[in-house]
Amino acid sequence: MAPSPTLVEVTRGLAVESRHCGAVAVVDADGATVLALGDVERPVFARSSVKALQALPLVESGAADRFGFAEPELALACASHAGEPEHVATAAGALARLGLDDAALECGAHWPLSDTAARALAASGVGPSPLHNNCSGKHAGFLCLACAMDVAPAGYVEAAHPVQREVTAAIEATTGASLASAPVGTDGCGVPTYAMPLVAIARGFARFGSGQGLTPARAAAARRLMAAVWSAPNQVSGTGRFDTQAIQALGDAVFVKVGAEGVHAAALPALGLGIAIKIDDGAARASETAMAAVLARLLAPTGDAGDWLADRVRRPLRNVAGKEVGEVRAADALLR
Amino acid sequence: MAPSPTLVEVTRGLAVESRHCGAVAVVDADGATVLALGDVERPVFARSSVKALQALPLVESGAADRFGFAEPELALACASHAGEPEHVATAAGALARLGLDDAALECGAHWPLSDTAARALAASGVGPSPLHNNCSGKHAGFLCLACAMDVAPAGYVEAAHPVQREVTAAIEATTGASLASAPVGTDGCGVPTYAMPLVAIARGFARFGSGQGLTPARAAAARRLMAAVWSAPNQVSGTGRFDTQAIQALGDAVFVKVGAEGVHAAALPALGLGIAIKIDDGAARASETAMAAVLARLLAPTGDAGDWLADRVRRPLRNVAGKEVGEVRAADALLR
Repeated sequence: MAPSPTLVEVTRGLAVESRHCGAVAVVDADGATVLALGDVERPVFARSSVKALQALPLVESGAADRFGFAEPELALACASHAGEPEHVATAAGALARLGLDDAALECGAHWPLSDTAARALAASGVGPSPLHNNCSGKHAGFLCLACAMDVAPAGYVEAAHPVQREVTAAIEATTGASLASAPVGTDGCGVPTYAMPLVAIARGFARFGSGQGLTPARAAAARRLMAAVWSAPNQVSGTGRFDTQAIQALGDAVFVKVGAEGVHAAALPALGLGIAIKIDDGAARASETAMAAVLARLLAPTGDAGDWLADRVRRPLRNVAGKEVGEVRAADALLR
Repeated sequence: MAPSPTLVEVTRGLAVESRHCGAVAVVDADGATVLALGDVERPVFARSSVKALQALPLVESGAADRFGFAEPELALACASHAGEPEHVATAAGALARLGLDDAALECGAHWPLSDTAARALAASGVGPSPLHNNCSGKHAGFLCLACAMDVAPAGYVEAAHPVQREVTAAIEATTGASLASAPVGTDGCGVPTYAMPLVAIARGFARFGSGQGLTPARAAAARRLMAAVWSAPNQVSGTGRFDTQAIQALGDAVFVKVGAEGVHAAALPALGLGIAIKIDDGAARASETAMAAVLARLLAPTGDAGDWLADRVRRPLRNVAGKEVGEVRAADALLR
């Protein structure tokens, strides 16, 4: 593997304490490179960064319409949510539209990603259900697709299930990556996740955002998913979290989605560009900072949006007592 | 900065998903190198890895004896504890011996590092106090030293306070690092933290463990602190956490202590060696894996201790539903 440039530094006092290396790809819908840092051809597990691509068949097939999935359900299908009450309610409501409940979810249960929500749940005296799993909205979408396809939903997380075949085909069509021989793993929620070149993930989001290179039906599905997330930005992540705040700040200039292990992807519809970032060590603090720097460079927004991005490009680090002790900041390679 | 070798890999399926780079120094009490990977001369903020060195004046001065600090209080003074009820009780008891309570602590309050303890606290309907701060035992030790020195405790976290002057002198004497011109920052709990060469941290622990190169009184204090941790290993970290489990598994063959931002230090008293590790990106999962690999290489234990280390050198990664999806493993550079 070629050495990766330092993308993000964490300082303490006047010294750099920790460093995050990685790669960044920004391309248009034809795959033409706008920005490339590090090895953008090496295969990267896309993880949850491509949930919006995984949700395309849900809309394109008519399944969402047939079962009355509206903006919140569609936004949650693209989400890695924090397990807040609003997320849980949306997921439960989506399942109810299918005549199902959380027993149909194969993602497993974990405590809410939101500490506040986890503590409130603990205080209520009950544990987490699969509805609290950050992927429950995506899985509700998979179940919706299974119902619309009239196939047995059980085993919908398996690669050979008709639902995952549709999902994999949508990822291939948008990214242009051939996944048949790609490294495959099992994601945190049980579905297959494929490793594909970082440029392919970026190209997938350039196409997702612009519709270029997609069939009209798929382009319309992409527009509808983005509109759902823009209308319900808290569903896609959660209170105070990066993706939700980015969409609240930047509006329809951006669709942005984090994945586990330091992956982050975005579409800039008006510019026709897609962004994909992989932090080698998997740290979210670094992928978020790098994404903020790339968004600031490409969008150069002013006003509140510009202020929000600037704070994320160079973010003060406070200790327990609230004293500013350092910062997490984009490194020179991202600022040039 | 010289490029660092890959020390730890995180796999998914058959592919490497993420990588952690860093440096490892193993030296004897004279500073002679036994193992050096990466740039072991670059300054590294020692953070909480040196809490045991910071606790030396507490014992050496007679302060601990004067106020009746026994094994649990001394182990907690060396700890980054998880905020479990036993830790909170020990910290509160230590303060009571000084005629103080948690209002004297200047470390700030945070939720317990243990998710279980945090949820139980939330369920009880109250928030965290400074006693739950992972550093509360260290701070109780600082307050004990202030009381014994007959100086006003307020401001004991400041570099110019008599307590921190003693603490800094103890770090300098054990590590051999000159801290007057070293990069300095503020630690998470408010006290100064210094950046020193990784070899100096390793040398500090070689001396701490063996007593070589220390005054007889300081060597005795080090033995007493180690004995306290060996007799109460849960105090130094917490249920199921790396340092506690390592000491439970390996007994008096090792004293080991994590620090924030991927620092990990250990003393191997019988071998007269000290170990210091810095993961460039700050990840604890990597420092723990690297430490396990170095301990396995140097101690080569058999039986349960060997099994525990082997599991930590190559640790299965399970997804939410419990399926094994990959592993966190020491890379070749550590296994040669």
